[in-house]
Amino acid sequence: MNSIALTPQPPYYAVIFTSLRTEGDNGYGEMSEKMVNLASSQSGFLGMESARDGLGITVSYWDSLEAIRAWHRNAEHELAQKAGYQQWYQSFKVRVCKVERDYGFEKGT
Amino acid sequence: MNSIALTPQPPYYAVIFTSLRTEGDNGYGEMSEKMVNLASSQSGFLGMESARDGLGITVSYWDSLEAIRAWHRNAEHELAQKAGYQQWYQSFKVRVCKVERDYGFEKGT
Repeated sequence: MNSIALTPQPPYYAVIFTSLRTEGDNGYGEMSEKMVNLASSQSGFLGMESARDGLGITVSYWDSLEAIRAWHRNAEHELAQKAGYQQWYQSFKVRVCKVERDYGFEKGT
Repeated sequence: MNSIALTPQPPYYAVIFTSLRTEGDNGYGEMSEKMVNLASSQSGFLGMESARDGLGITVSYWDSLEAIRAWHRNAEHELAQKAGYQQWYQSFKVRVCKVERDYGFEKGT
């Protein structure tokens, strides 16, 4: 995930997940990796970007709101969400967005 | 910026700026801090969230597309953008989004 996602021409959708963790790992690292792999295999998944230094920001990209809803309701993901509420997160915010425009830059080599 | 932005009820706008830096600071740290302060003072600015571990993600929130355009054209910000292209970024992507829905969680104390 440590790269800029290769998303298609807009419009598409983004879910911005911003979080503050609780102390300790409590199984988070393993589950987090599992959820990244599982999300990547979902229909309509376009890419994901993630960074944390204290505050964590994960942005996942999707081709439709229906794909986002299906991922939210995925059974394994629902179990992870439950553990997120109970154990892993002090606080979080989820923002569902429509990407209307994008542009990029890559330095010449 | 190391906290979850206190944004109003949707709809509002988000600019997701994802980047990979070049080597060395080259004045980036100082300018970055200056730009955060300058952005925060702009009309229509709602908040900002930022994290970097290799990949950097900064999300700024705005009340309108016009506010985003005005910030993009701000003279001091234009100088910073120029240095971004020339010195600070190996690559970046900017995504302009409409936040349609959000929800959050805060652990009880």
